[in-house]
Amino acid sequence: MSAAGGAPEPGPEVLARAALTRVLEPGDEHGGRWLREFGAARLMGLLTGPEARCGALTGAGPERLAGYRRRAAVAQPRRDLAQAAGAGCRFVCPGSAQWPTQLDDLGDARPVGLWLRGGPDLRTWALRSVAVVGARACTPYGSHMAQTLAAGLAERGWVVVSGAAYGIDGAAHRGALAAGGATAAVLACGVDVGYPRGHAGLLGRIARQGLVLGELPPGAHPTPSRFVLRNRVIAALTRGTVVVEAALRSGSLVTARRALRLGRPTMGVPGPATSGLSAGVHELLRGGAELVTDADEIIELVGDMGELAPARRGPVLARDLLAPAAARVLEALPAGRAAKPEEISLAAGTGTDEVIGRLYELHSLGFVERQGDGWRLAPRAPGEGAQSGADRRGGR
Amino acid sequence: MSAAGGAPEPGPEVLARAALTRVLEPGDEHGGRWLREFGAARLMGLLTGPEARCGALTGAGPERLAGYRRRAAVAQPRRDLAQAAGAGCRFVCPGSAQWPTQLDDLGDARPVGLWLRGGPDLRTWALRSVAVVGARACTPYGSHMAQTLAAGLAERGWVVVSGAAYGIDGAAHRGALAAGGATAAVLACGVDVGYPRGHAGLLGRIARQGLVLGELPPGAHPTPSRFVLRNRVIAALTRGTVVVEAALRSGSLVTARRALRLGRPTMGVPGPATSGLSAGVHELLRGGAELVTDADEIIELVGDMGELAPARRGPVLARDLLAPAAARVLEALPAGRAAKPEEISLAAGTGTDEVIGRLYELHSLGFVERQGDGWRLAPRAPGEGAQSGADRRGGR
Repeated sequence: MSAAGGAPEPGPEVLARAALTRVLEPGDEHGGRWLREFGAARLMGLLTGPEARCGALTGAGPERLAGYRRRAAVAQPRRDLAQAAGAGCRFVCPGSAQWPTQLDDLGDARPVGLWLRGGPDLRTWALRSVAVVGARACTPYGSHMAQTLAAGLAERGWVVVSGAAYGIDGAAHRGALAAGGATAAVLACGVDVGYPRGHAGLLGRIARQGLVLGELPPGAHPTPSRFVLRNRVIAALTRGTVVVEAALRSGSLVTARRALRLGRPTMGVPGPATSGLSAGVHELLRGGAELVTDADEIIELVGDMGELAPARRGPVLARDLLAPAAARVLEALPAGRAAKPEEISLAAGTGTDEVIGRLYELHSLGFVERQGDGWRLAPRAPGEGAQSGADRRGGR
Repeated sequence: MSAAGGAPEPGPEVLARAALTRVLEPGDEHGGRWLREFGAARLMGLLTGPEARCGALTGAGPERLAGYRRRAAVAQPRRDLAQAAGAGCRFVCPGSAQWPTQLDDLGDARPVGLWLRGGPDLRTWALRSVAVVGARACTPYGSHMAQTLAAGLAERGWVVVSGAAYGIDGAAHRGALAAGGATAAVLACGVDVGYPRGHAGLLGRIARQGLVLGELPPGAHPTPSRFVLRNRVIAALTRGTVVVEAALRSGSLVTARRALRLGRPTMGVPGPATSGLSAGVHELLRGGAELVTDADEIIELVGDMGELAPARRGPVLARDLLAPAAARVLEALPAGRAAKPEEISLAAGTGTDEVIGRLYELHSLGFVERQGDGWRLAPRAPGEGAQSGADRRGGR
């Protein structure tokens, strides 16, 4: 159901959802309820049809309804999808195989759909992702901690999700990129809008090595409320949220509290009690968040969420269910030793960036492991005599 | 039952307990059990009588028993008590009106008795005390935090208890003294031994403005195990323990974990995740201690322990149950305005240091309040029409 690069004609629900990203603001719970009650195509039909039939859309007053109708009248989802495909972007929505189902925890505030820039599969990436967020005007200490934690998470095969803002967000993305790791930026604007402008280069690197995504349609600009509502996507998409530095009443605390309410592990990095930029984090820690000081402590908290957690050893998917591109990369790995992405890229006949993205995907599924700066097949791949934990214990 | 400055002849139990502080090492649980089973005088009788009768003292082997007997044979409690009184010290033990009964929570590891230098009443001081402890080799940040927290606690009428060591301990005592507040040092040696030597001047100031105390008899020197066991007294004496800076496996963590096991609020001051001197505190915070960054947050945690907590307003003791010296200071306070300790001292005909000690005692009992650098009568003293909470609510 996802509209991939120019190829298949999108179905009516996908088309309507793409249009609705121009109609509904992020987190609009009236819209979310109508989507649930009527489906996307019928909701667009009501919003673009005769005004009298809009009586079915309860909860919003006449002025608000008129606003929805004005936006719906000018939406051109086919053009948006075509332009997005031309710019290397795609649209993923609920029902698609790539949809990260943990976003459904947001209920009627679930995004209508997500616009994506970058190759990796969002759903598998999100299964093994951690949000690292914090203050824009961070201190050198905060920036150092964000980079170090992100690099440590990336080295251990975790995807670092953040908001691409100046300060902690940028340091987190850079730390993951510098470790040759996986990172995803969730924007409060269209994924083709380079915001903040000073991060246009960074966003380009993230899109090449990872993912840039957001619920706003191409060309949409950020607003204060969009920033706040973007945070719920970061909180819901990831397995846990780490706040590195935050003043009291900071936006990062919104993300963190949302993560707490969603039952996701919510973590804070301590700092000097004398630092105003740690005061918000300390407040969060006093309110029930977990104190973390390194990547291992983070992974200890997010790595054991029951059925969501991919096994540490042994794939969670059968090999023949892999996407063809991922299967090609898996086949290109040599037996019995590690190889660097460049070597795998030669063997697979694919670009190195694509190979790195797929390796993280394969890692999250348990097929491969990191070794130094290379990758190797995981010891127990399916059909290779995998033993259960009980068998292993019995054999000792 | 306490042996005050040279005056009344000590009873046999007090005399025997004073002797036993030379026989039993701090925290000796065999000794604690025998004390409970036989009482102090009979235990001393067994240890100094015919060897054959020591069969009643079960649990310790013959070599250990021989050690106890050697020490008991040379103990001279009458001389110790007289010398202590001459040096302005006194001995307080279980059963005395000045004994802080919360030490009984240590069970058989309860101190045999405590030697004290300084005027204030230990029992009332301990009711409103917080331990502030930490690393000897602290950072400037740690020292700043210890001083600031201690000053804040002292300004709010709390007694700051610490171990008089270099680093965090010294900074905590100094912070309380500088705020004109109350502080008590718990030593791992005799209270007449100025250890560490560089803190001899500080210990003198603490003894004049507050209390220096310990379970070891006059002249006893500190040993590593005495330091470790001293920490249990700090943990048990106070309403809660704050660790400001501590490396992993630091002695302050022993105090903190003991406080946790005793059910006392146990708190840690966060610091940079990059600082080895905060690593122990962060470990503690991850293990269930509470994160605190200022004196109000500490008081919020220690100030509501049910029946132990002195009422915030209104005395917990009737005025005629006050010690005569405290009653004199209370009578010297002017009506309707605050006065400085110097003025009160003139009116009461007592030294200023004595007045300050008594004012803290009266404060812990709810009779007086601080106002700027002065003190005033609390609004609702007994017999002045104090209303119950229900009355006040009904009157609104």
